[in-house]
Amino acid sequence: MSVLKLKQHRQLIGEELDRVVAFWLKYSHDTQGFFNCIGSDGKVYDELKYVWLQGRQVWMYCRLYRTLERFRKPEILEAAKAGGAFLQKFARVPSSGSPWKCAFCLTRDGKAVKIQRTIFSECFYIMAIDELSRVTEDKDMQAEAAQMMDHLIHWVRVDPSVLGRPQLPGDQPTNSMAIPMMLLCLVQQLTDGRGADVAQRYKEIGAWSVKNILQHVQRGGTAVLENVSVEGGELAGCQGRLQNPGHALEAGWFLLQYAADHGDEALRNTAISKFIELPYHCGWDKQHGGLFYFLDVDGYCPTQLEWNMKLWWPHCEALIAFLMAYSQSRSPAHLDVFSEVYDYTISHFSDAENGEWFGYLTQEGKVTLDFKGGPFKGFFHVPRCLLMCEQILEGLLQKHDS
Amino acid sequence: MSVLKLKQHRQLIGEELDRVVAFWLKYSHDTQGFFNCIGSDGKVYDELKYVWLQGRQVWMYCRLYRTLERFRKPEILEAAKAGGAFLQKFARVPSSGSPWKCAFCLTRDGKAVKIQRTIFSECFYIMAIDELSRVTEDKDMQAEAAQMMDHLIHWVRVDPSVLGRPQLPGDQPTNSMAIPMMLLCLVQQLTDGRGADVAQRYKEIGAWSVKNILQHVQRGGTAVLENVSVEGGELAGCQGRLQNPGHALEAGWFLLQYAADHGDEALRNTAISKFIELPYHCGWDKQHGGLFYFLDVDGYCPTQLEWNMKLWWPHCEALIAFLMAYSQSRSPAHLDVFSEVYDYTISHFSDAENGEWFGYLTQEGKVTLDFKGGPFKGFFHVPRCLLMCEQILEGLLQKHDS
Repeated sequence: MSVLKLKQHRQLIGEELDRVVAFWLKYSHDTQGFFNCIGSDGKVYDELKYVWLQGRQVWMYCRLYRTLERFRKPEILEAAKAGGAFLQKFARVPSSGSPWKCAFCLTRDGKAVKIQRTIFSECFYIMAIDELSRVTEDKDMQAEAAQMMDHLIHWVRVDPSVLGRPQLPGDQPTNSMAIPMMLLCLVQQLTDGRGADVAQRYKEIGAWSVKNILQHVQRGGTAVLENVSVEGGELAGCQGRLQNPGHALEAGWFLLQYAADHGDEALRNTAISKFIELPYHCGWDKQHGGLFYFLDVDGYCPTQLEWNMKLWWPHCEALIAFLMAYSQSRSPAHLDVFSEVYDYTISHFSDAENGEWFGYLTQEGKVTLDFKGGPFKGFFHVPRCLLMCEQILEGLLQKHDS
Repeated sequence: MSVLKLKQHRQLIGEELDRVVAFWLKYSHDTQGFFNCIGSDGKVYDELKYVWLQGRQVWMYCRLYRTLERFRKPEILEAAKAGGAFLQKFARVPSSGSPWKCAFCLTRDGKAVKIQRTIFSECFYIMAIDELSRVTEDKDMQAEAAQMMDHLIHWVRVDPSVLGRPQLPGDQPTNSMAIPMMLLCLVQQLTDGRGADVAQRYKEIGAWSVKNILQHVQRGGTAVLENVSVEGGELAGCQGRLQNPGHALEAGWFLLQYAADHGDEALRNTAISKFIELPYHCGWDKQHGGLFYFLDVDGYCPTQLEWNMKLWWPHCEALIAFLMAYSQSRSPAHLDVFSEVYDYTISHFSDAENGEWFGYLTQEGKVTLDFKGGPFKGFFHVPRCLLMCEQILEGLLQKHDS
C-alpha cells in the first residue's frame, strides 16, 4: 500500500474522530454525569446512567485530552472532571457489602438502580479515575484507582463472595476471556509511563493475565474459545464451544502491546497468528462481509439470538488489531485486511447524516437498532479505535518520512 | 369461514401436534430428566437441563395424557413421572437460603449450575407437579405444589429477599406483566375442577393477579405496556415504554379463561379489545408479516437486540388468543386473524423436513437460529398451542353439529 493511501486513511480517520467527538460533546452532557441513551439524531430517549459507560466516557475524554493536541480543550477537560466527580459521588454502593462494589446503572441523579454480579463497573471506574488523575495530577485519585484495583484482584483470585454469586456444585469454575483481558488492560492503564516501582507492583498480575488469555487458544492452536476451565481445558457444551471473534481480536492487540512493552517476540507472534489472523479468518462473513458476533467452534448454531448480527465494536477492535499488527510486522496482508474491514465498517456503521456510528446491523448489513448510544454502546469503542488508528498511522508515516 | 375450513384446521393442527410430540419423544429423553438443547435434526448439542423447560415438559406430557385420548399412552406417562422425579430430586437448592428456591439450570446429572433472582423456575415446578398429581392422583405431590405456591405468593407480595435482589434506592418497584400472569396461570392450574374450597383458597390472589394485569393497559386504553409502577402508573424511560405483543396476547387468553370461569362479561370484552385485538394491531409487521418481539410505544428503537425478530411463541399465543376470542365472540374478524397468523406461522416456523418448529426468524422471516430446543425453547408453547386450538376447534364443530 502506498504512502498516499496511509495518508488518506489518516486524514479520513482524523475527520471521523472529530465528528464522533463533536456528537458526544453536543448531545450527551447533563448537569452531572452523561446521558448514555441517545437516539440516531442526538435525542435522549432514556435518562439512566450506566456506570460502564460513564467511566468509559471519562477515560476517553482524558485520553484524547492527554494524547492529541487538538483535543486539549477546556470543554473536554471540564466534562471529564464532572464525569469523574459523578462517579466518585454515586457509583459505589456501600450497602452491597463492600465499599468498593459499584452499581451497574444509576438514575439520572445518581441513585443505584442495579448491581451486576461481575467486576466490570469497577474496571471502568478504575480506568476513568486513573486516566483523569494523569490529566489533573491528582495523587489521591490515582491512589483510589490503585486501591480499587487491589480489591478487584482479590475478588477475582481469592474471594468472589462480594460479587454475590452463590457457589453451586454444578457451576464449574470458568476462565472467561473478559476477566484476564480486563485485568491486563488495567495493568497497562495503571503502569503506563509510571516507572519501575509501579511496573513491579503489577508485574505478577500482568503475567497471570497473559497466561490466562493464552489458555483460550484451544484445539491444537486452531481456535480461540471464549470460556475455558481454570486449568485451561475445554469446557463441555455451548459455553465451551463459544467463539467471540471481536473479543479475541481485542485481546490480540492487548497482547501485542504487552509483547512490545516486554520485548517478547514469541508472544507477539502468538498474538498475531492466534488472536488476530485466526479470529478474522473464522469470524469474517464471506457472504455478506463483517464479523459475526458469536460462533460455535463445531458449527452448531449459537444460542445467543444476536449471534449473526454485525456489531460495531468487533469491527473497531479488528481495525486496531490489524493496523497494530501491520505496524509491527510490516506484512502487506495485515494492511489489506485493515482496508477491507475499514471499507465495510465506514460504509455500514458510520452515519453520514447525523454523525457517530450505528451499532447493530443484521447479518446482511442493514441497520436494525438505530440509536447512537444505548445500555452497552457509549463514547468508547469508536473514538478509541479512531484515536489509536490515527496514532498508529501517524507513527508509520513519521518513520517513512524520516 | 365455513365448517369445512374449521374441519381442515382441526385436521392439520392435530397432525402437526402428533409430529411435534413424536419429535420430543424421540429425541429429548435421557435416563433422568429431559435433554433441552436439541438441534434441527434432533441431535443433542448441550446437556444442560433447564428447570423451566423440565417443568414445562412434565406439565405438557401430563396435560396431553389427561385431556386427549390418543396421548393416553404409557410411554408419555412414564416420561412425565421420570421428569417429575428428576425435578423433585434436584430442582430445589436448599443452600440458596430457602428450601423452596429452585435452580434455573442443572447439569445432566442434576447438580445446580445457576439460580435466577426470579420466581419462574418455581412456577414451572408447581405447574409440573400439580398436573402430574392430577394424573397419578398423588395427594402428597398436590400438597407440595400448594405449599410452594404459598411461598411464591409470599416472595411476590411480602418479602422478596429470598430471591437475592438487593434493594436499591433507584430501583423503582415495578409491576412486570410476567408476575401477575404467572400467578393467574398457577391459580387456574391449582383450582381447575377442584371444587369450591380450593377455589376459595385462591380467590383473592386470582383477583389480585387480574387487577395487576389490567394495570398494564395505559395511554387511555390505547396500549398495553410490559412494565408499570406498582400503583399502576407509567414508568419513565425504555422500561416504561416497552411493549411485548406476544406477552399481551398470552395475558389475553388467560383473562378470557378467567372471565369465562367467573361469568365476567366486562372482563371478557377488555381481554378481547385490549389484550388481543390491540397487541395484534400494534405488533403485527405489516410489511413482512409476523409479530415483532418488542416495540417502544413512542416509536423509539427498543434496546433489545432481538426486538424485530419473529419468535415462535408469540405466534403460538396469538393463535390461542384469536381462536378463543372467536369461540366466545363468534366474530368472523377474529377467525380471519387466526387464519392469517396460522398461515404465517405454519409456513415460517414448522419444519416439514425434520419435524417440530424453528424458534427464531429475522424480521424478513428467514430462520436465523435453527435449533428445535434451546435454553428458552422446549416442549411447551408449540404443543400447548396445538392442543388448545384442536380442543377449541373440536368444541366449535361439536356445537355446530348439535
